[in-house]
Amino acid sequence: MITTGHGSTEAITTTGTSEATPRELGVGMRFSLHPHTDDFVRVILDSLAEVEASGAGEGLVIETDEVSTYVGARAVPAEQDLAGYLVAAIAAASRHSGGGHVAAHVLFSRGCPGERTCDLTSTILPEVAPVRLEPTGIEAVAQWSLYPLLDGGDDAGEHMSIIEAAITRAQARGVAAPAAHYATKFTGDLAEVVATAVDAWARVGTTVPHVATHLTISVGSPTPARGT
Amino acid sequence: MITTGHGSTEAITTTGTSEATPRELGVGMRFSLHPHTDDFVRVILDSLAEVEASGAGEGLVIETDEVSTYVGARAVPAEQDLAGYLVAAIAAASRHSGGGHVAAHVLFSRGCPGERTCDLTSTILPEVAPVRLEPTGIEAVAQWSLYPLLDGGDDAGEHMSIIEAAITRAQARGVAAPAAHYATKFTGDLAEVVATAVDAWARVGTTVPHVATHLTISVGSPTPARGT
Repeated sequence: MITTGHGSTEAITTTGTSEATPRELGVGMRFSLHPHTDDFVRVILDSLAEVEASGAGEGLVIETDEVSTYVGARAVPAEQDLAGYLVAAIAAASRHSGGGHVAAHVLFSRGCPGERTCDLTSTILPEVAPVRLEPTGIEAVAQWSLYPLLDGGDDAGEHMSIIEAAITRAQARGVAAPAAHYATKFTGDLAEVVATAVDAWARVGTTVPHVATHLTISVGSPTPARGT
Repeated sequence: MITTGHGSTEAITTTGTSEATPRELGVGMRFSLHPHTDDFVRVILDSLAEVEASGAGEGLVIETDEVSTYVGARAVPAEQDLAGYLVAAIAAASRHSGGGHVAAHVLFSRGCPGERTCDLTSTILPEVAPVRLEPTGIEAVAQWSLYPLLDGGDDAGEHMSIIEAAITRAQARGVAAPAAHYATKFTGDLAEVVATAVDAWARVGTTVPHVATHLTISVGSPTPARGT
């Protein structure tokens, strides 16, 4: 059974006999846009409005609050929809700020729709097709962290093995640098950077019922050596 | 044994017979500052310089790259030092941007200094005193996520129980709202918001060898209803 947190008004129950939907699995993201300009309010609002007008939000639940925007997937292809929405929003913010410095932070999560009791051990976890996104022409640098949320046991090091395998796959795509403290650096087209993180997260999700990943993305930074 | 990742030049080995130091446990953070102003480069550099001049970085390893700043603790009181440094940096950025909108993102981690093999099962995990910080007078709103990185087993729901207990404690401090999707909202003085996250993370770290927590912090936002 999955029960949603206080943030939702619906209770969701899955059975172990059929493949779970993205909604039942709590597949979604929470992201924030940070245009480094005096005109940030206009840039953010124009960017979100443009993405909404483009239809990229169709089939998604979108809620913006003081800190971030929650985007929940209802149906397949959930990962494709989420990645497409995020890339469109960051690309729009980059354009609306005249190619200036924009940072974004995103948390993708799958496995527990709210924060309360969540037991997915009897749920069949779906395989997910890799995300396909058109290149944006926007070079991005990012830092990526992956959290497979296993439950306790004696299988020492299993969560690290999962993380290491995911880093190795991201490196094979040409996006990831060697791992650094707490995060792995990604460089490449904005679309490929996001796709690499989303594919890694979705892949771990086929064997681990609850997995989150965080990505801090920077585009248009004028200070590559010191751009905190 | 702990071996550090490619980001470090040192190999670190702990024994199971003595209490591990913060350095051996890989206690540290990675944060980014996002002043929403045309003058963001000056604000960031002046803020980091001010914090450095204040001596808040003493005993810490500090490395800034294109995306974020890594701060590693070497000795106790590690959590106090990290929290103090972060609060000083955000408060300085708020001042240097004239009280304008500044967002910050921080990842705290303990348990694996690099990304490679990490087995802390035989290491004694230290109890940590709560962080004590002077109020800043700066109101902050934040979203907080906590990741206890257990290894695999049949103890279904254990990681969620740990998260739920931490949320309940943060609520008892008066900082945390009811949980929402993927994150719990914090409001309060910047110092108390950071202290609540750091104390929760340190407390989980006394029983779970590897635990990370993420905090997205916003101060000075002029758009409380839409500030993405």
